[in-house]
Amino acid sequence: MLLKGNEAVVYGALLAGCECFFGYPITPASEIAHTAARCFPKLGRTFLQAECEIAAINMVMGAAANGRRAMTASSGLGISLKQEGISYLSGSELPALVVDIMRGGPGLGNIGPEQSDYNQVVKGGGHGSYRCIVLAPASAQEMCDFPRLAFELAEKYRIVVYLLTDGVIGQTMETVTLPEPLPGRAPIPEWALDVTKPRTNMISSIFLEHDDLEAVNRKLQAKYAAIRSAEQRSEEYRTEDAEVVLIGYGISGRLCRSAVDELRAKGIKAGLLRPVTLWPFPVDAIRKQTQAKEFIAVEMSDGQMIDDVKLAISCDRPVHLINRMGGNIATIDEIVARTIAAIGAKEA
Amino acid sequence: MLLKGNEAVVYGALLAGCECFFGYPITPASEIAHTAARCFPKLGRTFLQAECEIAAINMVMGAAANGRRAMTASSGLGISLKQEGISYLSGSELPALVVDIMRGGPGLGNIGPEQSDYNQVVKGGGHGSYRCIVLAPASAQEMCDFPRLAFELAEKYRIVVYLLTDGVIGQTMETVTLPEPLPGRAPIPEWALDVTKPRTNMISSIFLEHDDLEAVNRKLQAKYAAIRSAEQRSEEYRTEDAEVVLIGYGISGRLCRSAVDELRAKGIKAGLLRPVTLWPFPVDAIRKQTQAKEFIAVEMSDGQMIDDVKLAISCDRPVHLINRMGGNIATIDEIVARTIAAIGAKEA
Amino acid sequence: MLLKGNEAVVYGALLAGCECFFGYPITPASEIAHTAARCFPKLGRTFLQAECEIAAINMVMGAAANGRRAMTASSGLGISLKQEGISYLSGSELPALVVDIMRGGPGLGNIGPEQSDYNQVVKGGGHGSYRCIVLAPASAQEMCDFPRLAFELAEKYRIVVYLLTDGVIGQTMETVTLPEPLPGRAPIPEWALDVTKPRTNMISSIFLEHDDLEAVNRKLQAKYAAIRSAEQRSEEYRTEDAEVVLIGYGISGRLCRSAVDELRAKGIKAGLLRPVTLWPFPVDAIRKQTQAKEFIAVEMSDGQMIDDVKLAISCDRPVHLINRMGGNIATIDEIVARTIAAIGAKEA
Amino acid sequence: MLLKGNEAVVYGALLAGCECFFGYPITPASEIAHTAARCFPKLGRTFLQAECEIAAINMVMGAAANGRRAMTASSGLGISLKQEGISYLSGSELPALVVDIMRGGPGLGNIGPEQSDYNQVVKGGGHGSYRCIVLAPASAQEMCDFPRLAFELAEKYRIVVYLLTDGVIGQTMETVTLPEPLPGRAPIPEWALDVTKPRTNMISSIFLEHDDLEAVNRKLQAKYAAIRSAEQRSEEYRTEDAEVVLIGYGISGRLCRSAVDELRAKGIKAGLLRPVTLWPFPVDAIRKQTQAKEFIAVEMSDGQMIDDVKLAISCDRPVHLINRMGGNIATIDEIVARTIAAIGAKEA
Repeated sequence: MLLKGNEAVVYGALLAGCECFFGYPITPASEIAHTAARCFPKLGRTFLQAECEIAAINMVMGAAANGRRAMTASSGLGISLKQEGISYLSGSELPALVVDIMRGGPGLGNIGPEQSDYNQVVKGGGHGSYRCIVLAPASAQEMCDFPRLAFELAEKYRIVVYLLTDGVIGQTMETVTLPEPLPGRAPIPEWALDVTKPRTNMISSIFLEHDDLEAVNRKLQAKYAAIRSAEQRSEEYRTEDAEVVLIGYGISGRLCRSAVDELRAKGIKAGLLRPVTLWPFPVDAIRKQTQAKEFIAVEMSDGQMIDDVKLAISCDRPVHLINRMGGNIATIDEIVARTIAAIGAKEA
Repeated sequence: MLLKGNEAVVYGALLAGCECFFGYPITPASEIAHTAARCFPKLGRTFLQAECEIAAINMVMGAAANGRRAMTASSGLGISLKQEGISYLSGSELPALVVDIMRGGPGLGNIGPEQSDYNQVVKGGGHGSYRCIVLAPASAQEMCDFPRLAFELAEKYRIVVYLLTDGVIGQTMETVTLPEPLPGRAPIPEWALDVTKPRTNMISSIFLEHDDLEAVNRKLQAKYAAIRSAEQRSEEYRTEDAEVVLIGYGISGRLCRSAVDELRAKGIKAGLLRPVTLWPFPVDAIRKQTQAKEFIAVEMSDGQMIDDVKLAISCDRPVHLINRMGGNIATIDEIVARTIAAIGAKEA
Repeated sequence: MLLKGNEAVVYGALLAGCECFFGYPITPASEIAHTAARCFPKLGRTFLQAECEIAAINMVMGAAANGRRAMTASSGLGISLKQEGISYLSGSELPALVVDIMRGGPGLGNIGPEQSDYNQVVKGGGHGSYRCIVLAPASAQEMCDFPRLAFELAEKYRIVVYLLTDGVIGQTMETVTLPEPLPGRAPIPEWALDVTKPRTNMISSIFLEHDDLEAVNRKLQAKYAAIRSAEQRSEEYRTEDAEVVLIGYGISGRLCRSAVDELRAKGIKAGLLRPVTLWPFPVDAIRKQTQAKEFIAVEMSDGQMIDDVKLAISCDRPVHLINRMGGNIATIDEIVARTIAAIGAKEA
Repeated sequence: MLLKGNEAVVYGALLAGCECFFGYPITPASEIAHTAARCFPKLGRTFLQAECEIAAINMVMGAAANGRRAMTASSGLGISLKQEGISYLSGSELPALVVDIMRGGPGLGNIGPEQSDYNQVVKGGGHGSYRCIVLAPASAQEMCDFPRLAFELAEKYRIVVYLLTDGVIGQTMETVTLPEPLPGRAPIPEWALDVTKPRTNMISSIFLEHDDLEAVNRKLQAKYAAIRSAEQRSEEYRTEDAEVVLIGYGISGRLCRSAVDELRAKGIKAGLLRPVTLWPFPVDAIRKQTQAKEFIAVEMSDGQMIDDVKLAISCDRPVHLINRMGGNIATIDEIVARTIAAIGAKEA
């Protein structure tokens, strides 16, 4: 089935049993809302174009609190507006799926692809000590497959899961094999509000007593530690003997794969480690790259992920940055040339 | 003059020539809006309680675009809502002052003091590759003095400057010496819109061509590099021969100072490095602590600043975390005891 | 079937093929939104609680422009907020159903029953020379039956139709015989937008040229004249030889019916004329009351309908007012006594 | 001083001691907001462009509740949106000035002049049994003079006063003699909230007990009756022996004056009665026209004021309508010709 990434993510969400889509269209994420508007009601599920981004995330919160699988999607500007809501969801430990199709920034920027929401999404754009799981799909197929993983993780850990990708992945059309649909929706979880029953519980992020809120935060941190142990995901390509390891996610990861082949053809032992989870960052897999002499972070931003690479290896080997911004994408040749220059510069 | 930090910051802003305050009250920042409401109009300046946090930051943008010194203030929840606007201000290179009096999070949390907006404010809570200068006052006096520094930096670099502090600093009453008022407002800058003249320029963050936006981003990064070189600020206390250096800002910094004395009294060579700027992080001053064998990051969060400490020293010595959350504050005794334990734990 | 008026109107609307309900709850109309929330989705139709009254009426406009049967419901305060939208619907000649369950006013007033939105609804609460058809149900049965009539008239004339009634009619439970459901929805009208087809038309109320807008207004006035001729509706009771004719709608009409019997029992030749349409006002039926020597307008307001009674009879006989306000309802005894006094006062 | 009506009304308001202007620009009323934005702050008074029409009227309510002279201005669309607020002001018995510069309707219509908000403004566009005093200026001079009268009446009766006029009066430039400024603001009235004192009263329109709300309504109706007795205002021209009396307000009144001269020149005994107050309608002055054989209502609407003329004379003589709509204005020749036709038509 030939699908854009932005369409595939809706198909994937529906097959994963997503019951509600609340959103507000914004380029380059608009096809997600359009596709959801077309598909959700046909299957008896809820699509609602909210009056604004803030309303959309708060509707997601309402649905999630009632035990429904709910999602929203936007681009950086909208994700900024949703930060209060995402902090609320996190403080209330509600599962939800948020898709961010990154565009050029800051401000209005442009509608070209960038990866400059990394800090916002991975480090926490909202207030408070919370974390979200961040998946970084790199193809239409992953756009289709990851919603299921996202909802499984979201519900297992009662956490917000982001799909963070860029306009290229969102808008390129590729062949997609639809995953098996999840069998019928599991019962409403115990912890959820259930409008069909008398209310016996409350879902909230307010804890007036300092000790209570500290306990909540300790519990959250324990949960985050468990996720760090169990849920790191990444993909490697020709890393076994790689002396230089390129690290890139999303579209950068795809370009790096081809660049690795080119570098190998030039006699340079290169490999690729593509983070699939950005949080938890695949620290363990990166630490295992003991054969590597240096690392290259390939990003379409000012260099945001690079700090996580440095921290992963305790800054014990060089980490170079190859980046483009403003909607421009590094070509494979450019990545190859700049990798050689980065290594050579050091050798000189 | 006996003032709360939240009052002192308004006095300081007025003395620094701030012409407009746009805000929305939220505990524990409300006294800022209250004091501004009382004082700005008396001096013929503009106070406006906006209809929401988003309106407030956008009004700041409008005033700033017209060359006026403008500020807003809030706590974490409101700062989350302002992220889109802050990214717009940054992309448009507009000077502005944003005060964040941190409270307990995530979500509604409580109104106790925390330092858990560090990632949001320092790493970039909004979309795109932008940075804000972040000052961390640790007393009512600094609350009063820093607005002037903030506007000087904001206008010199055309950048958003945050004052990031917590409810303790905001609400404790201390004696404050008012700084000299800035002499009369300088002329509206060349780059600003000027409603009294025909419009010849435009202030915007939209750059549709990828190369144009990339050039803007390269220019921004060069500016940020210049700020990293020139504007790091920190304060040290008994660090000369310190084998363990505590690093803390705001209320944590104050507590650490007393803890250093206690530790010294127990024969432990401790010192304090208090970051005054959180961005740019005082990397150079930390790197100079070559005498130190280990570091302690003292934070009222899950440990957010600690990554910047690790990166500053290239992870070449241990960095421990002492933290509390939920509105609880570590006592001096607790910092002392946990410092000893942290060092001891390593020695064992 | 035992139903409140507020429930009956939803059943009636559904049986009349209403496809969309957009609303915002307000006492004493809330059961309408509640019932719609429960019933519309079960039948595959759209229920949406809008973010505010204004959004609700604008959503009605959107649905109506697409040829869908759409309704909203509120009480006076909400109807006030909807006036811009109702003028837009009227200027765009879109059919829609608006239910107003009147409460005590002005301002917040209280939630008791009144009839004080007559001027607003019947004379035109919005801007411009427009009219809406106004039906005044006086029982749960009429609440159930009138939506079908309302949609028939709305679509025949492309006009807004109000159901105007009060909290007593809305909230009293009565036995209702459900009407036959309308057979399946007729095709989308020619004039409507149709999202399934390329757009060939536009629905708008903007006509920049004065002559164009005047032509639109002339056409509207011709339509209104046609409605005045064809669509007056009223119900009479013992008027044949009535020397005094009571005129009241909604709950007042019901009370007057009993009052007529009481008056007859006292030897006074009384009758009732109950307007079923308030616009067009049943002028012809009132003019036929040539046997009557005087009229009594019974209203739960300051006397708003009374002007229409006077105009109907060209002020050629006395028209007295019996009214209560603030949520108080005249008892049958009170109507009887004040009728006798009104006639007697004149005779004295 | 050469001023547009829209400018003159701001000058007049300032000279009448108006302290606050809250508004939102809309053609053809925008010059009012523009002029207020320029002039109010210069005089140390408050100008605020609200985020929407609804906010503007609610800000007026807040200022009025605090005993400040406050105003807003808009055109029909905005006046529709303000209806809830105007009902609140009326139920709370707060004085305020609302200016409506009528444009073409219904819906978006166009920006040409009309008089089609008569029903909305005079009969009550909001919910509940309330009335507003409505002044109808017919020149820039009256636009300048009437704000003072408006505030005097508003404060004497604690009532909303409208200035209702049209785009021609608003936008035509005429020589204006500025009135004497009111001497310094009288003390805050007893009934007002006063932020400088402890709160001892409450201003509200909510009265939960039916008897309480009925008492409020009875009191309001007594006040309205007193206003009807004392405050009718109108202007007459050549009516002494007039057999046909033209009745028109605002721009229609001015045109009628010239038409009267033309008709007299043709030997027809015509006169003009120009209502200056539309509510209370100048019933007494119209009733005194016993010499008149017929009346002509001249309106730029579908004929809204005409009902009040008919009721004033108890429908005992013919009342004809001469109207234009859509932004078109009847010429003097047209009024003359149609008057002759109307009389002739009757004679035929």
